[in-house]
Amino acid sequence: MRAEIISIGDEITSGQRVDTNSAWLSQRLGEFGVPVAFHTTVADHLPDNVQAFRLACERADIVIATGGLGPTADDLTRQAVAEMAGVDLVQDEGALEHIRALFARRKREMPASNLVQALFPRGSRVVPNPHGSAPGIDLTLPRAGRESARLFCLPGVPAEMQEMWQATVAPAVVAMLGKPRVIHHYRVKCFGVGESDLEAMLPDLIRRGRTPTVGITVSKATITLRITAEGESVEIARQSMQPTIDVIHQCLGDLVFGYEEEELQHAVVKQLQQRGQTLAVVEWGTAGLIEHWLGECADCAQVFQGGLVLRDAAGISILSSMAAEMASMLGLHAEPTLSVVAQAARERFGSDYALVIGPFPPAVHMSAEPGSVVLAVAGPGGVATRAVPFTGHPDILKPRAAKQALNLLRLAIAGK
Amino acid sequence: MRAEIISIGDEITSGQRVDTNSAWLSQRLGEFGVPVAFHTTVADHLPDNVQAFRLACERADIVIATGGLGPTADDLTRQAVAEMAGVDLVQDEGALEHIRALFARRKREMPASNLVQALFPRGSRVVPNPHGSAPGIDLTLPRAGRESARLFCLPGVPAEMQEMWQATVAPAVVAMLGKPRVIHHYRVKCFGVGESDLEAMLPDLIRRGRTPTVGITVSKATITLRITAEGESVEIARQSMQPTIDVIHQCLGDLVFGYEEEELQHAVVKQLQQRGQTLAVVEWGTAGLIEHWLGECADCAQVFQGGLVLRDAAGISILSSMAAEMASMLGLHAEPTLSVVAQAARERFGSDYALVIGPFPPAVHMSAEPGSVVLAVAGPGGVATRAVPFTGHPDILKPRAAKQALNLLRLAIAGK
Repeated sequence: MRAEIISIGDEITSGQRVDTNSAWLSQRLGEFGVPVAFHTTVADHLPDNVQAFRLACERADIVIATGGLGPTADDLTRQAVAEMAGVDLVQDEGALEHIRALFARRKREMPASNLVQALFPRGSRVVPNPHGSAPGIDLTLPRAGRESARLFCLPGVPAEMQEMWQATVAPAVVAMLGKPRVIHHYRVKCFGVGESDLEAMLPDLIRRGRTPTVGITVSKATITLRITAEGESVEIARQSMQPTIDVIHQCLGDLVFGYEEEELQHAVVKQLQQRGQTLAVVEWGTAGLIEHWLGECADCAQVFQGGLVLRDAAGISILSSMAAEMASMLGLHAEPTLSVVAQAARERFGSDYALVIGPFPPAVHMSAEPGSVVLAVAGPGGVATRAVPFTGHPDILKPRAAKQALNLLRLAIAGK
Repeated sequence: MRAEIISIGDEITSGQRVDTNSAWLSQRLGEFGVPVAFHTTVADHLPDNVQAFRLACERADIVIATGGLGPTADDLTRQAVAEMAGVDLVQDEGALEHIRALFARRKREMPASNLVQALFPRGSRVVPNPHGSAPGIDLTLPRAGRESARLFCLPGVPAEMQEMWQATVAPAVVAMLGKPRVIHHYRVKCFGVGESDLEAMLPDLIRRGRTPTVGITVSKATITLRITAEGESVEIARQSMQPTIDVIHQCLGDLVFGYEEEELQHAVVKQLQQRGQTLAVVEWGTAGLIEHWLGECADCAQVFQGGLVLRDAAGISILSSMAAEMASMLGLHAEPTLSVVAQAARERFGSDYALVIGPFPPAVHMSAEPGSVVLAVAGPGGVATRAVPFTGHPDILKPRAAKQALNLLRLAIAGK
């Protein structure tokens, strides 16, 4: 059994609004163990709507549509479903009564246009919408030689759609499934090598047909391994992926820094919190990005002592006159200068660790030798510096350098 | 001529990631007057991909797909397109050379798996990807009895996809269109009052059916007026909206701070740049958000002298012992303390202006009196402080305080 989600509206096909309903419904279906094979978005155009409904009811067993149930001329879902199913539209007295009552409660007269919201394809059931004037449609569509398809049409307003899913559609889907089955996802987050290299370290895991499935995606140098397993409950599905998680840890070791929504800054804040230690940050190239990321962490106040964002060597004297002198002699790109900056920051902010990200080299042409960024970590055990290459898409340069710095700190705190 | 967008990946059909590429591409196509009839999202499953490509190339004339071009086993776009077109995959030497050079530049060996990224359906053209290892595909697909369909496959990484659209796909689409007709949008950005109050200041502009159309949206306290007009060229459409833009300026005055993508930080950087002046920032409550925003501005280096992110009163002595003394006597929430901090920051960083955002008050219950955040601006003309109420949805507190501070600075620089 597989599903398809249809979302309807010019505002989505034209890109004026990003569709979030389809992702939400896909997650809910996934939790019941129903894989979603397609999302289709279609404009407010009747023949295209009819085609989209017809195709979805052929290739999927459960179809959930959102949008097109309003009272205006561009709301075509009722009509498209009736045409697709080859039936006419009939008025539902209960639905009409509900819409009338809704307007009465808001002390407004019901416009005549709202009458169409009480029309339903013959043979369909009403999905009640307690808080809105657009009831949904629940239609079973016979298919030659196989099980019927089941189509649910819900309004596009997320709050109403979600309420109707919970109250009516979810129980109907569960009843269709017989024995309950859930699909559970769990993400392992890694940093420090490229996507292909990491895949090569995981023999046989990213293989189609393997159970549980392991998918690999990369976003701004953070690699996510997404494990997917099915089971009778979340707990059982989670248990069945434990051996896979163990293999990932064995193969990747320190490359794994966290799970699910965690980023490197959360990993570092957690480490410091557990040790009762604190951090100061001095940023040139990353221009405040790390301090902003730390500021967004829930428990940041306990570990973050403060930091500086600097533009050139001028501001350095705020921290230390010796660092300023070294900067004028050796330059800001020199590892010894940034080593002294890290020690000074640790002292001035009274923190256990200080992390320093040096200035970015000037952008160079693709063919030229790329420059490097110097990172420094001062801690109870001394200072470590590291120069990392500065190359790649402009959008990735700042977040990647920030992550490289946080990763250096993470390994330093762990004593690696 | 109409278009379809295909996005590919289990992470989207399962709802783990919301697809924003389709909306972005739809907007770009809309600007060229090409309506988008469908978005299709398909999982990493070869037969479904082949079906999605086949259907799209039948019902649309321009098809743009994103995703599935990576080097791993679940990247199926190359294969699906070749199968749909009935051709084999052949290696492109130029693309291979580019991928090799990319790895060489990063000083990494190219994993064998990346070889597949140089494979192309026979007869297709390469869409160069200057910053990534996934080149795109440009395929013309003959159709019986009518014009060919044109299919572009781009990577799912938004930055790479957008760059490839601009450099290669957009010019190709323009060449396909005969006489151009464009839909042009222009946004006027405002800050300082609520959405309803601002709408009331603009009689008759936000009316359906008006030409040009004016829409109003609010995002984290920034109000955007979106003007839409059609014409034979961007210039002609733009000219037709000038009287509307003039009315907006007459009605709103200083509430307008910029246009299009501009945010308050861009407005402030532009003001300072024009005057050859500089800025330092000290943040408590906003925890580095303003310094991060400034760091993201293209011309920030010329005006941003540096800044501090502080957690409590401890770090203040880095700036000034007098400020530290005042903080211990009057507290950090007192306007005189932050006034001295602003003056000290201006002095220590050697900047023309210093902006200070005080600590956030503790979160209080809805029914209690809300606290306030103290903002201070020191400049050539002296120091100004202001306490702003601290209330609203938790998600908005930090960006709104940051914007209030930048707006105070903007008006101070302008002498208002």
